[in-house]
Amino acid sequence: MVGGGTDAFIGGVHRMAARLDGAYELVAGALSSTPDRSLRSAEVLGLARGYGDYLSMVEAERSLPEDQRIEAVSIVTPNHLHFPVAKAFLEAGIHVICDKPMTLTSREAEELQTLASNASLVLAVTYNYTGYPLVREARQMIAEGAIGAIRKVIVEYHQGWLATKLEAAGMKQAAWRLDPTQAGVAGAMGDIGSHAENLVSTVTGLELEAICADLSRFVEGRVLDDDASILLRFEGGAKGVLLASQVAVGMENDLRLRVFGEDGSLTWRQEDPNRLLHHPMGEPVRILTRGGPGLHANAESATRVPAGHPEGFLEAFAQLYSEIAVSIRATQGRVEHAGIHPTGLDGLRGMRFIEATVASAVSDAKWTPIQGSHNQD
Amino acid sequence: MVGGGTDAFIGGVHRMAARLDGAYELVAGALSSTPDRSLRSAEVLGLARGYGDYLSMVEAERSLPEDQRIEAVSIVTPNHLHFPVAKAFLEAGIHVICDKPMTLTSREAEELQTLASNASLVLAVTYNYTGYPLVREARQMIAEGAIGAIRKVIVEYHQGWLATKLEAAGMKQAAWRLDPTQAGVAGAMGDIGSHAENLVSTVTGLELEAICADLSRFVEGRVLDDDASILLRFEGGAKGVLLASQVAVGMENDLRLRVFGEDGSLTWRQEDPNRLLHHPMGEPVRILTRGGPGLHANAESATRVPAGHPEGFLEAFAQLYSEIAVSIRATQGRVEHAGIHPTGLDGLRGMRFIEATVASAVSDAKWTPIQGSHNQD
Amino acid sequence: MVGGGTDAFIGGVHRMAARLDGAYELVAGALSSTPDRSLRSAEVLGLARGYGDYLSMVEAERSLPEDQRIEAVSIVTPNHLHFPVAKAFLEAGIHVICDKPMTLTSREAEELQTLASNASLVLAVTYNYTGYPLVREARQMIAEGAIGAIRKVIVEYHQGWLATKLEAAGMKQAAWRLDPTQAGVAGAMGDIGSHAENLVSTVTGLELEAICADLSRFVEGRVLDDDASILLRFEGGAKGVLLASQVAVGMENDLRLRVFGEDGSLTWRQEDPNRLLHHPMGEPVRILTRGGPGLHANAESATRVPAGHPEGFLEAFAQLYSEIAVSIRATQGRVEHAGIHPTGLDGLRGMRFIEATVASAVSDAKWTPIQGSHNQD
Amino acid sequence: MVGGGTDAFIGGVHRMAARLDGAYELVAGALSSTPDRSLRSAEVLGLARGYGDYLSMVEAERSLPEDQRIEAVSIVTPNHLHFPVAKAFLEAGIHVICDKPMTLTSREAEELQTLASNASLVLAVTYNYTGYPLVREARQMIAEGAIGAIRKVIVEYHQGWLATKLEAAGMKQAAWRLDPTQAGVAGAMGDIGSHAENLVSTVTGLELEAICADLSRFVEGRVLDDDASILLRFEGGAKGVLLASQVAVGMENDLRLRVFGEDGSLTWRQEDPNRLLHHPMGEPVRILTRGGPGLHANAESATRVPAGHPEGFLEAFAQLYSEIAVSIRATQGRVEHAGIHPTGLDGLRGMRFIEATVASAVSDAKWTPIQGSHNQD
Repeated sequence: MVGGGTDAFIGGVHRMAARLDGAYELVAGALSSTPDRSLRSAEVLGLARGYGDYLSMVEAERSLPEDQRIEAVSIVTPNHLHFPVAKAFLEAGIHVICDKPMTLTSREAEELQTLASNASLVLAVTYNYTGYPLVREARQMIAEGAIGAIRKVIVEYHQGWLATKLEAAGMKQAAWRLDPTQAGVAGAMGDIGSHAENLVSTVTGLELEAICADLSRFVEGRVLDDDASILLRFEGGAKGVLLASQVAVGMENDLRLRVFGEDGSLTWRQEDPNRLLHHPMGEPVRILTRGGPGLHANAESATRVPAGHPEGFLEAFAQLYSEIAVSIRATQGRVEHAGIHPTGLDGLRGMRFIEATVASAVSDAKWTPIQGSHNQD
Repeated sequence: MVGGGTDAFIGGVHRMAARLDGAYELVAGALSSTPDRSLRSAEVLGLARGYGDYLSMVEAERSLPEDQRIEAVSIVTPNHLHFPVAKAFLEAGIHVICDKPMTLTSREAEELQTLASNASLVLAVTYNYTGYPLVREARQMIAEGAIGAIRKVIVEYHQGWLATKLEAAGMKQAAWRLDPTQAGVAGAMGDIGSHAENLVSTVTGLELEAICADLSRFVEGRVLDDDASILLRFEGGAKGVLLASQVAVGMENDLRLRVFGEDGSLTWRQEDPNRLLHHPMGEPVRILTRGGPGLHANAESATRVPAGHPEGFLEAFAQLYSEIAVSIRATQGRVEHAGIHPTGLDGLRGMRFIEATVASAVSDAKWTPIQGSHNQD
Repeated sequence: MVGGGTDAFIGGVHRMAARLDGAYELVAGALSSTPDRSLRSAEVLGLARGYGDYLSMVEAERSLPEDQRIEAVSIVTPNHLHFPVAKAFLEAGIHVICDKPMTLTSREAEELQTLASNASLVLAVTYNYTGYPLVREARQMIAEGAIGAIRKVIVEYHQGWLATKLEAAGMKQAAWRLDPTQAGVAGAMGDIGSHAENLVSTVTGLELEAICADLSRFVEGRVLDDDASILLRFEGGAKGVLLASQVAVGMENDLRLRVFGEDGSLTWRQEDPNRLLHHPMGEPVRILTRGGPGLHANAESATRVPAGHPEGFLEAFAQLYSEIAVSIRATQGRVEHAGIHPTGLDGLRGMRFIEATVASAVSDAKWTPIQGSHNQD
Repeated sequence: MVGGGTDAFIGGVHRMAARLDGAYELVAGALSSTPDRSLRSAEVLGLARGYGDYLSMVEAERSLPEDQRIEAVSIVTPNHLHFPVAKAFLEAGIHVICDKPMTLTSREAEELQTLASNASLVLAVTYNYTGYPLVREARQMIAEGAIGAIRKVIVEYHQGWLATKLEAAGMKQAAWRLDPTQAGVAGAMGDIGSHAENLVSTVTGLELEAICADLSRFVEGRVLDDDASILLRFEGGAKGVLLASQVAVGMENDLRLRVFGEDGSLTWRQEDPNRLLHHPMGEPVRILTRGGPGLHANAESATRVPAGHPEGFLEAFAQLYSEIAVSIRATQGRVEHAGIHPTGLDGLRGMRFIEATVASAVSDAKWTPIQGSHNQD
């Protein structure tokens, strides 16, 4: 692991997620931004091999015999380090699990994706919400035509924790997210808007064609956006709306998706993740439940406990880690098929989306074309 | 009543709404588009005075002694007749209760509003959702600063009943709504989008400054929009989004409002109208309930039965009728203050909004300024 | 109307309910407990014929020509007056609509039922919750075997308004309900428990065989129960639980029903009355909505506005009034079938139930047999 | 671990729960009922020390040097083995984590509790629902008087998976639960009713005084109960109801608790575990959320991810394991205070409750006294 020292938030989440299903053992890490704190964190966590920084980690690990070195690295630093760290490990032949957004620019994302692709290495991006069983169910249903051709997609991601200027109050989590040198060109769009984009892309399979974005900085003095309202047009004629805000007072982690097709619609909420509402045209609504009747194999296999025993955020995150483990084993010929998880292509698509939203916003919400993922190699 | 024959839908609703609180007696009407059916409907409803058309009704009523003629007319025809009918009755000195949207054009709306204003007559528009007690509570809370300065407003109105081409299947309700000669320049925007606009305006008190609209016609062969996604900018810096669709399969009458301020937020859903969620910054969410503790007088007075005994659509509609009755009595000096209900100014604001959305949409979703209501007299 | 003066609560509800669908005209009344207040209330309400007490009302009305006298009387007094008033009007050949519980004792109930039956008069009891469209749907589904043979029924009715000693604080609504001379042998059981009993009986069609009741008086100094927990055994082997409380702080009017059968189950809540949950064995839950797809004719005909436009308590109450109007017309040969509403048999069943709960409670919750309604004539 | 072979359900849950927070390492086990399958399961799970049965495991582990032997054993067998296994390990000086119900009889439970107490060993019982943060919050609020003196408690636990005769269809999970030699005197009461009892006891702190139970066997041919309705009386005058069923078709794992006090009430549902509803008398309802504002330290410390990122069943279970680890460290003097988790006293209280329900049921639901836990040492 790179990043994720004991004072960070997301590192602990990644560790629990990796641990839950038992497919990973955490043995090495460069966990903080200074050697001192990195080593101290490694000690607290009882890592076999603590490093002062990621470069010495790459160096040391690549020089270990293959059966002793790490198989994969999980990168959980602020955004600006994703690219150099991922690049270094990919070049060392080590699989990469990278937090989102994958890089600072789409150019960096392309480079990583090419690198991984050429080296036949796993490059996974932890858009963790796609790990929810009922997100997988929705994807499968749509792929099989359960709601017909899609007309309209509404995706929302509302949080309220940045409604005041926490970054000026010394809150580290807020500070780097709103600092362009660490977060990139976007604030809320990069932090949560990119999750929303990926959720739509994953579930619907639609490719964006153009967007029209209104980004806001509601809290005075912010350089990066803390709120976004974006109109979407997809290839093939479907339309949509993406709303993201981190100043939505009272909202906790309110990620929602509604997909309307010609024959039905689906509704899902991250805060109530064990239920998926299916509205078939002209029939009563059905509530599909995690572990309940009527699910596809992809959704059933992504669950640990029976229906009614709620699974949550960590289980969905763990699902991603377990799927990535499958992909790693697939590169080793130990299993036939790769796992189901976001890859470098998703990371690249995400970066193109973020850049397009910013471009649209600075042109006062003009429709801005967006390069589709099928054009990306 | 003009319009609302026994085969229409909304006429019956208006009649129940008028009847519920006992403030009206329905005595006269020109209820259908042909004299024959008008008279038959009047007979079925047991009206004292049935007329073949609205012109003969105006003529006959104005010639009655003042204590026998109707005090007010309720206009529940398709949109294109609102203006001529309202104009005729206002000119005859009769108060007008008009369904929404008020007219076909903002010019007509201005004319009606001027007419009513000069004659000191009540011109009320039945944006009925503002009659819900908790909509009134939300308005009052915001006016008193309960959630601080507003930053973002999200209003949505989703229905699914026009997801297929019902207008071609001989369904009368669908046919006129999608026929420009009867409905005006907008389809879904006029029918339900205007309710959404009015709800925002009523609750927040904000004035729109500019909008950026993407209107769609998802069902092939439609001339008017059946879906809309609109970015909003308000005077003073607040932003918003208005979503309206009549092809949202599975949605019934899903009107929702979320208002985010600097210090809190409010959430309300028309399909669950007896609850208003208040999220004060840094405190647990509170559920305000109709008839429950902690409401303002304006909300308390708009309710008929105790908390937990659900009131619904008809009660909210009845509230409007009762408030309009108060306004009529106020013009007669029988009470001091007018009632709380949408007026010609709301109707005019609505028409300006509809026209702006269409203008924005045809210019491929350019930001289009919108004339504020404070400039309207 | 007898009872329901302008300072009473339930009288106004009955009047709105009677008015909503337009089937009744209120022309006469003895509205309060003193002649003075009765006459004043009648004047305020604009009744054609106000009376000082119910006896003079019976006398005067029966002496009117048949086409001028009232067709039916609605009795909305405290419980102890139901019997004498109903008896007097039935004996005068006037149909009776009586609030619940129907009488003070099952003996009185039997007498009224016999009287009405022999005179071929309508004796309707306003167990108003059975007027909800989805209660009717549940009843029909169960009758048709949609959930198989019933095993378990859970009915609950929780309110919190009597959690403190309001009756001692001069609150009239509380005072008579907790005074045995006006309310009868039961407090909460009579006031709300009887609604719960009737809801179960109506929806399931099951007959109670025996009950085991624990009644409580949580607020000090009360003579009558303010809380009840009752085990139920039905003929044929089904079991159940009835919970009722008026000291359930925070609950508003929380009437709920769950019915579990061999092949499925149904869940309904009065505070969310436009939805009925159907859990078919081994399939996803379905949400049936008022006005939505998949309903039986009995439920569809009991609704006024389309799906998504919530109907509530008053509409359900109005449904009862409209159905009773049908029954009255049926006695006159003007329609073929009586309406669907609770009758004197329900009222009698309710009284037997109330008496059995009290008997069980005083014997320290012994199983107490209860006379079934099929033995009652 | 004893029990929990790879074909069992609950063993895997315990393992994930133990692993999530990183406080345990699973090194040894006797995992199945035959030596063969035990050893094979141990191999599959990669245990350092697999044993054929628990006796050889006790023998072998106690003979290891203290720093190499297991510190604690987790017992996840069918009920009838809990006692002999726990006894053997306690006698070997090894801490015991035991699934519920703790034993087959209260006599066994007393013996275990005495044994653990005398040896100063941890005897923890995995009533896992008490690990939910908002269950801990409810307990703390009640202890501090947030809802005043408790009047009424309603606890429910409904499942539908045993609505058909799965035990005859070869389903192992169903078979042992309904076999008296493995499950004990109770079916649903032991399996889920005991969770409900413990939840009430934990949250309210009330001691049961007497109960009146109606147990049913709805599926033909069952020897043990599959449904229960129980009236509760607590010391001090509070009353309650406990409902448990495994034939409630359509219910998944529907454990709910409502506690009504003199000044307020609390509502919690296991299937929506991240929210706790607090109804303070005369004020709007408040929704307390896991990780949200207004929680006590005990609830805050039991959570891993921020508000809005749902935690679920496994996290609550993990909380118990982490708390038990604290208790084990406390016995070693490494921390000052024991953790917060159910102990042998809870296990004993549970057995007394189960026995009392069966006694009451066979006497046709007579009130049956129940020995309080304060009399138990």
